[in-house]
Amino acid sequence: MRMVDLIEKKRDGGELTAEEIAFVISGYTNGEIPDYQMSAFSMAVFFNGMTDQEQATLTMAMVDSGDRINLSKIEGIKVDKHSTGGVGDTTTLVLAPLVASVGVPVAKMSGRGLGHTGGTLDKLESIEGFHIELTEEQFIQQVNELKVAVIGQSGNLTPADKKLYSLRDVTATVNSIPLIASSIMSKKIAAGADAIVLDVKTGEGAFMKTKEDARKLAEAMVSIGNSVGRRTMAIISDMSQPLGFAIGNALEVKEAIDTLKGQGPEDLTELCLTLGSQMVVVGGKANNLEEAREMLKEAISSGKALSVFKQFVSAQGGNPEVADNADLLPKAKYIVEFLSENEGYVESLEADEIGTAAMLLGAGRATKDSEIDLAVGIVLKKKIGESVAKGEPLAEIHSNREDVDEVIARLQKYIKVSAQKIEAPPLIGELIM
Amino acid sequence: MRMVDLIEKKRDGGELTAEEIAFVISGYTNGEIPDYQMSAFSMAVFFNGMTDQEQATLTMAMVDSGDRINLSKIEGIKVDKHSTGGVGDTTTLVLAPLVASVGVPVAKMSGRGLGHTGGTLDKLESIEGFHIELTEEQFIQQVNELKVAVIGQSGNLTPADKKLYSLRDVTATVNSIPLIASSIMSKKIAAGADAIVLDVKTGEGAFMKTKEDARKLAEAMVSIGNSVGRRTMAIISDMSQPLGFAIGNALEVKEAIDTLKGQGPEDLTELCLTLGSQMVVVGGKANNLEEAREMLKEAISSGKALSVFKQFVSAQGGNPEVADNADLLPKAKYIVEFLSENEGYVESLEADEIGTAAMLLGAGRATKDSEIDLAVGIVLKKKIGESVAKGEPLAEIHSNREDVDEVIARLQKYIKVSAQKIEAPPLIGELIM
Repeated sequence: MRMVDLIEKKRDGGELTAEEIAFVISGYTNGEIPDYQMSAFSMAVFFNGMTDQEQATLTMAMVDSGDRINLSKIEGIKVDKHSTGGVGDTTTLVLAPLVASVGVPVAKMSGRGLGHTGGTLDKLESIEGFHIELTEEQFIQQVNELKVAVIGQSGNLTPADKKLYSLRDVTATVNSIPLIASSIMSKKIAAGADAIVLDVKTGEGAFMKTKEDARKLAEAMVSIGNSVGRRTMAIISDMSQPLGFAIGNALEVKEAIDTLKGQGPEDLTELCLTLGSQMVVVGGKANNLEEAREMLKEAISSGKALSVFKQFVSAQGGNPEVADNADLLPKAKYIVEFLSENEGYVESLEADEIGTAAMLLGAGRATKDSEIDLAVGIVLKKKIGESVAKGEPLAEIHSNREDVDEVIARLQKYIKVSAQKIEAPPLIGELIM
Repeated sequence: MRMVDLIEKKRDGGELTAEEIAFVISGYTNGEIPDYQMSAFSMAVFFNGMTDQEQATLTMAMVDSGDRINLSKIEGIKVDKHSTGGVGDTTTLVLAPLVASVGVPVAKMSGRGLGHTGGTLDKLESIEGFHIELTEEQFIQQVNELKVAVIGQSGNLTPADKKLYSLRDVTATVNSIPLIASSIMSKKIAAGADAIVLDVKTGEGAFMKTKEDARKLAEAMVSIGNSVGRRTMAIISDMSQPLGFAIGNALEVKEAIDTLKGQGPEDLTELCLTLGSQMVVVGGKANNLEEAREMLKEAISSGKALSVFKQFVSAQGGNPEVADNADLLPKAKYIVEFLSENEGYVESLEADEIGTAAMLLGAGRATKDSEIDLAVGIVLKKKIGESVAKGEPLAEIHSNREDVDEVIARLQKYIKVSAQKIEAPPLIGELIM
């Protein structure tokens, strides 16, 4: 078998066999296939796509390129959730204790990541004493006891994907649905997920700018998961404005706690109930989405979800009192109100740009080595469609620097108020299963 | 400027500016742009093509990547001819002295190349004493005096093309019309051509298998040439069967001499008159193709063309008597007739496969380091459409080895005789200018 022939086959619209895909991925991982062939191959995939069968085979070939986390000692169906990335997305912090509280085991491996705020690990570290240094044994034992634990990424998972992603990044081959879908799914499967729930964001603040692209990506991932024996569901959700009100690490922890108490923002609560219901169904704890939603609402109203959160925080060394007293979280020195210059309705809150404003305050990492400030960020006071009076606050800027002119200038540019009444965009789009 | 952005632009169907193309080619030549970006770029070009303007700019960027041969001391319009490669293609040996004899300067730089037979240089070296070691001064002086000289390739011409071609070869990006066209045209222009005549072969024995692809390539090259100030014409010619009768180095020299005497094969003569007329027109020595053709026919019938051939051979150290006595050329030890097993009409003579048979005898190089045998080859006795009796020779095998079973087996497979009368395919297709 020669790589040049496989590039040609894909270039000419052919379907690669499982053996051929295995040859490509193992050869690329071990260095026998050079980058210049892999990039030409990726560009051919960009243009000609892949069949469902090819995507599934590619995903498993990437899983097989490295280690796999063995979660077999954890009882039940291990469900993982993945979001394609949004601004102010605190769902993991809510969902992990919430679905755990109805019996779905959440063995979460999480990252720090680059972006507007830190990753799930950074956010949790806003809680005094919280740590992620668990041995594999402790991790498994905690999930079996509390149904929830979170640790950092370990092991050499999907090295083929890591290598390929770096290459795609510099060869304009990132935006290929089969390559994105197999990259995401291979990481989830290697991390031990038995079932997967996906939140594909769409809109200006998301990687997928159009609903059509988001639908294609969701369909590709659901097809892959189901065809390799991982029950998978997806929704498409709006990311034209940030999710919830808070963008920042400790600020989002507070918002997640509010949501677990039934006092969170409407949109975040709704998204958590939607994704959570899917997790409960694919986790085999309810027969349908309606039944699952009732279970989750009950877990919130009864205080069970919050109680699991406290136990989880406590088990990983954190102070559970944070759930009752948000003042225990890191706080910024300055809170500056950003006021509306006009009367009217909020017309746009550009998610990506407001996220960048939070990063400028220090909430996120621009590079791998950036330090992040857990206290800072932005709290919106209004969402799209809400009315606002002249001089009323649109947002609060939480900063440890006195000078926030740059952030204010950005908010002035990207939060627009219109005289006309505006309809808020629907949060939850299609369900794909 | 970043290469990844230019790959993306081409991937999305954009047109690159001259500055952007210069950035790509100079960066790739000096190693700043790595192979893996260039191969992704080439694949994007494969899918999205290039505009006429982009192709022309790319061609000149490749010319500018290395040395250029300066032929300005040669009087007149220097015309070069290029064929996309066929089997038994002896046209250069005929055309060089033929058009020189009517005053068009031919300053030919030629190669040895891989393939079924040697290149023009190898063929000429079948003539005792012929050498190509001319200084630049001698070369220019000889063209000014005799209107014709042939030397080997020298200088660092189009290094970008050399590097890119090697990469395309292993990344399934060879078959891209803009990349093929710019590769060919850049080499001709760097070698000093003021005007260019192109013979684009089509059919099973050619690189372009279909007439449509051949036309696209011809149009791309003519467009490039004319837009960079090199008057360019092209024809599409048939390569479903070998050109002329002879395939082999000395055998083709003999056939070329016969053609210069007006006694050559009909198809080779016709092709030489067609291409030669174009060379005379773009060389400014005739006002139209009809007038040019008459001049060339006159040069053959008067003996002027043959006389220039003799002077040319003599000037480069060869024995001009070869023109009157073919026995002076190297001869193979064995001549084995390949006889028809049936009565009927020649249905097919697969050019590529018969060429390979000649290579098996030693007429061509399989690798750069192969030694070639100038004496050996194949001489066809019949062409497609001709009638043949049972037991009548279809071809002669000229070999220096007694055992030619492998060659006979190949000829049996690829020379087919049919009971039905067959129409020979037309040799000359469209003229593109």
